Amino acid sequence: MSPQRAVILLSGGLDSATVLALAVRRFDVYALTVNYGQRHHLELDSARAIAAHYSTRISPRGGLMEHREIAMDLFGGSALMSPHPLPHHPSTNTPAIPCTYVPARNTILLSLALGWAEVLGAKAIFIGANAVDYSGYPDCRPEFIEAYQQVVRLGTKAGVETNTAPVIHAPLIDLPKAAIILMGQSMHVDYSLTTSCYDPTKEGACGVCDACRIRLEGFSRAGIKDPVHYRSEKR
Amino acid sequence: MSPQRAVILLSGGLDSATVLALAVRRFDVYALTVNYGQRHHLELDSARAIAAHYSTRISPRGGLMEHREIAMDLFGGSALMSPHPLPHHPSTNTPAIPCTYVPARNTILLSLALGWAEVLGAKAIFIGANAVDYSGYPDCRPEFIEAYQQVVRLGTKAGVETNTAPVIHAPLIDLPKAAIILMGQSMHVDYSLTTSCYDPTKEGACGVCDACRIRLEGFSRAGIKDPVHYRSEKR
Repeated sequence: MSPQRAVILLSGGLDSATVLALAVRRFDVYALTVNYGQRHHLELDSARAIAAHYSTRISPRGGLMEHREIAMDLFGGSALMSPHPLPHHPSTNTPAIPCTYVPARNTILLSLALGWAEVLGAKAIFIGANAVDYSGYPDCRPEFIEAYQQVVRLGTKAGVETNTAPVIHAPLIDLPKAAIILMGQSMHVDYSLTTSCYDPTKEGACGVCDACRIRLEGFSRAGIKDPVHYRSEKR
Repeated sequence: MSPQRAVILLSGGLDSATVLALAVRRFDVYALTVNYGQRHHLELDSARAIAAHYSTRISPRGGLMEHREIAMDLFGGSALMSPHPLPHHPSTNTPAIPCTYVPARNTILLSLALGWAEVLGAKAIFIGANAVDYSGYPDCRPEFIEAYQQVVRLGTKAGVETNTAPVIHAPLIDLPKAAIILMGQSMHVDYSLTTSCYDPTKEGACGVCDACRIRLEGFSRAGIKDPVHYRSEKR
């Protein structure tokens, strides 16, 4: 009997790379990367590199079957078009999106994963949400994931007809970054392929943004050198 | 004090046109149309025509502020790209999507509406979901909407910080089509602008698909002539 299918949200960051390593041990995995405009192109390159890395490791117990990308500039640009802008009441008081927060991000990402999961008949959806490092994000908390699971149960054919709705797995949700890194290391995750920095360039990660800071602290606490290059380091 | 903001999912069909007429009586409305590949281009034209119709009716009590479109071919074509298809295990046993069912459709649509609602600080999201005519769709039932409301409460800044998450309004959820039409007529909805047919052409609606059949039966029970042209009718 071949393994069950799972859809994973693969961003190209450290967390989702670790979750992918977990998922391929037990499932036939379909990885979904959503380019929603806020993310740097280098992060997409990372997602592709991670997917390519796992595409060579198919086993009877599971593996990465396919990697898909959706391009989607949410409320920020090209994918959201306004062919008939209405001339009245211009919305001048629309608040700016905070630079690291995407409104309803995980709700949207999980919905897209759910759509693909229904098509595939997948029994699991994996997401690298983490409540410890991003406690300010409401959609990274266990209670959000539980509420979303109920939507999946009630809003899908599989859930309603046969009580076999996909199960949402957020295996990192309450782990500190160092524990995630140690877990990933035990599964030989190649963290050199991942991108966490909010402002990466070809010369490396900035080393000072929130994402770099959390990442570097995680590697430090884990007692492991971060294999990613930082711009402040000599090559 | 200006009215509160609401986001509405506007498909171009009869139901969402009726919901729009309800919403503009009380809210500053932002209409979102998602072209997810399955929909005929003429339905998008209808959404645009309905939006244009309401853009001239701004009042102190509310009105249509803006109409946006998102193009998004979910799991069917151009927006979903696969730049790195993995050669192993081709997914030959992927079941086909039923022709009128889009996996996780309302979950995805509500997520996109929620994203915009958060940006706008909107207090309401309107959806024309209807459990009576589409009882086979799990995501058109009141219990689905309730579960989704819980996700909105727990997954948004407004919900977590100030208990002011957008409220999901599905005012048609338990109404038969004839009641929807009579309600719309009382609000002077121009149903000639709407498209329900799964296979409309410039010569008119087919008159025989499920959507046409349900629509025609609704108008018949309401004792009103459907203003839309059907291909079988003489001009």
